[in-house]
Amino acid sequence: MRETLAEWRPAVDEALADLVPREIDAEYLETFFGEPTYEYDPDGIQRALSDPLWDLLDRGGKRWRAVLFLVLVEGFGADPMEYLPYACIPEILHNGTIIVDDVEDEAAKRRGEPALHHLYGQDVALNAGNAMYFLPLKILTENPADLPDDRRLAAYEMLMYELNRTHLGQGMDICWHNEREVRITPAEYLEMCACKTGCLGRIVARLAAIITDQPDDVEETVANYAELTAVAFQIGDDILDVENSLGRAGEFGKEFGNDVREGKKTLLVIHAIEESAPENALRLEEILEADANTDEEVLEALTIIENAGSIEYARNRALELAAQARTEATELEFDEETTRKLTEFTRFVIDRDV
Amino acid sequence: MRETLAEWRPAVDEALADLVPREIDAEYLETFFGEPTYEYDPDGIQRALSDPLWDLLDRGGKRWRAVLFLVLVEGFGADPMEYLPYACIPEILHNGTIIVDDVEDEAAKRRGEPALHHLYGQDVALNAGNAMYFLPLKILTENPADLPDDRRLAAYEMLMYELNRTHLGQGMDICWHNEREVRITPAEYLEMCACKTGCLGRIVARLAAIITDQPDDVEETVANYAELTAVAFQIGDDILDVENSLGRAGEFGKEFGNDVREGKKTLLVIHAIEESAPENALRLEEILEADANTDEEVLEALTIIENAGSIEYARNRALELAAQARTEATELEFDEETTRKLTEFTRFVIDRDV
Repeated sequence: MRETLAEWRPAVDEALADLVPREIDAEYLETFFGEPTYEYDPDGIQRALSDPLWDLLDRGGKRWRAVLFLVLVEGFGADPMEYLPYACIPEILHNGTIIVDDVEDEAAKRRGEPALHHLYGQDVALNAGNAMYFLPLKILTENPADLPDDRRLAAYEMLMYELNRTHLGQGMDICWHNEREVRITPAEYLEMCACKTGCLGRIVARLAAIITDQPDDVEETVANYAELTAVAFQIGDDILDVENSLGRAGEFGKEFGNDVREGKKTLLVIHAIEESAPENALRLEEILEADANTDEEVLEALTIIENAGSIEYARNRALELAAQARTEATELEFDEETTRKLTEFTRFVIDRDV
Repeated sequence: MRETLAEWRPAVDEALADLVPREIDAEYLETFFGEPTYEYDPDGIQRALSDPLWDLLDRGGKRWRAVLFLVLVEGFGADPMEYLPYACIPEILHNGTIIVDDVEDEAAKRRGEPALHHLYGQDVALNAGNAMYFLPLKILTENPADLPDDRRLAAYEMLMYELNRTHLGQGMDICWHNEREVRITPAEYLEMCACKTGCLGRIVARLAAIITDQPDDVEETVANYAELTAVAFQIGDDILDVENSLGRAGEFGKEFGNDVREGKKTLLVIHAIEESAPENALRLEEILEADANTDEEVLEALTIIENAGSIEYARNRALELAAQARTEATELEFDEETTRKLTEFTRFVIDRDV
């Protein structure tokens, strides 16, 4: 996976810079956004859009959504270079959601540096994040690979379907953070992940299928592969937060027990509440619902989760989902190399350490 | 105008409730958002989406974007009832931008009540506002009037074009708020309005033209009409803020000199800086850039604006734009009744007192 990511990165970054240049001028604005009625202010748009966007992109990120898209396009027998600009669609969408999520969660840090709203102000950061929901969709209008109208229409409809569900998932997640009780089931938690995280994965997969004109059942199978992988990834994220925090007990820091502090109702929490003795379950809910917690209280919550066997439970669920994803990948009858990459990818999302 | 608005309101509100019901259940979620992979949480989505959306809609708002759309559809010789669901597109988009703008501007109030982020939390409000950017676009997928594919594709592309420019306009505006100097020209200010406020008007007009299959030049003319009217409306808004504040001097309150407090670079401010003696221009910039101002300082700024003749200047520009809008409306060769409504509308946006 690592080589595939490294191999494609320069081309992806070039395509991103074609979409939103590092230096904004009037000519770019006229070409991309259309003739102004009066007169654009390129300086203002530089600071409102390009600066925050490239600040975030330059901090890293694996561009795996863009690369997975290109791997799938190649697997479908098309030339990935021909469809390169489309790889920006999920990548920019993803980075837009990051900026907005960080405002919603009042996050302090992102990729090791201050979250964007701390550097640019909440207004600029939010508007840049929201602009990134629409910017990449203009690629479909520009139509760089000369797609016929029916595929372009299918792509728009797919994007509206998935982006609606993304906000549904985020809505459920946020709403649960703010609730006192843990009242949700594992199925509802998985749905939230399928919507919030899964839909961006589905966009990667369905876009590759649509633009290369695959039949409906292939589009569905590859979407399932991506959704399952993304949900496994999300659970992997939740496990990492608990494991890293437990491994770091004693050297408490800013990142210690983030999810507990935010009151996140993760799969681990849902399981721990179900499986713990009533007094422990109650204590866990109490810590999660508190506005602020000491490091000792966070550690207490993490220990209840660990003692309930919830890390093991969550890991098994993630492994099951990854295995299901591999089954879907096998059904797609790609060439050996593509199948190997897709398989590797389902392992990477759980076994990573960051 | 008032009667037209009142006449259509019940039908528009019913269409809005069809799109997002006041009570969310699993059946609605499955029908509108698609089958869940696992299981939805209708309670969570009630609180994350429907509650804030209807709270805002029930506070009032004239639904003029929806009604203007229906007036135009009728003017184009089609039955507005057939296309009623599409009227929700600009209306929900507009209300979504209100929620997000209020977070960006840290607004305290909206339509006489606390801004939504104060009631529901910033996270829920923001996500609801962003969801409202995508929710109404699903109407094109549902295709209630059975439009042919080419019109639906044209509608998507139009929406992506205009929604991209909306964020460009908001970006310029926000960026200018945060700047010390007033460095922009009237042309750049008008462009910001054309993007930020005008594009939502253009969506109203172009959507009516596209779904009733008008030729390109008609779509362009009606879009120009709506853009000009919306820009005149925005300048009218800026004038009202200054006039109401000056009329209310002595009884300072929360609404006193809002735009000055936010540091907004309105057309009035740009003109006043240009036309005032250097020491007054400098003083005005100083007050606009300060983090906090006393009521006396705000009054001082308003007086500099008034003495520079900037209210008169802005009113004349707004009247010119409204007159241009009427010229566009006349070119459309609508029936007499529609032309009368469109003309009335260009006067309403400047002569209103709220």
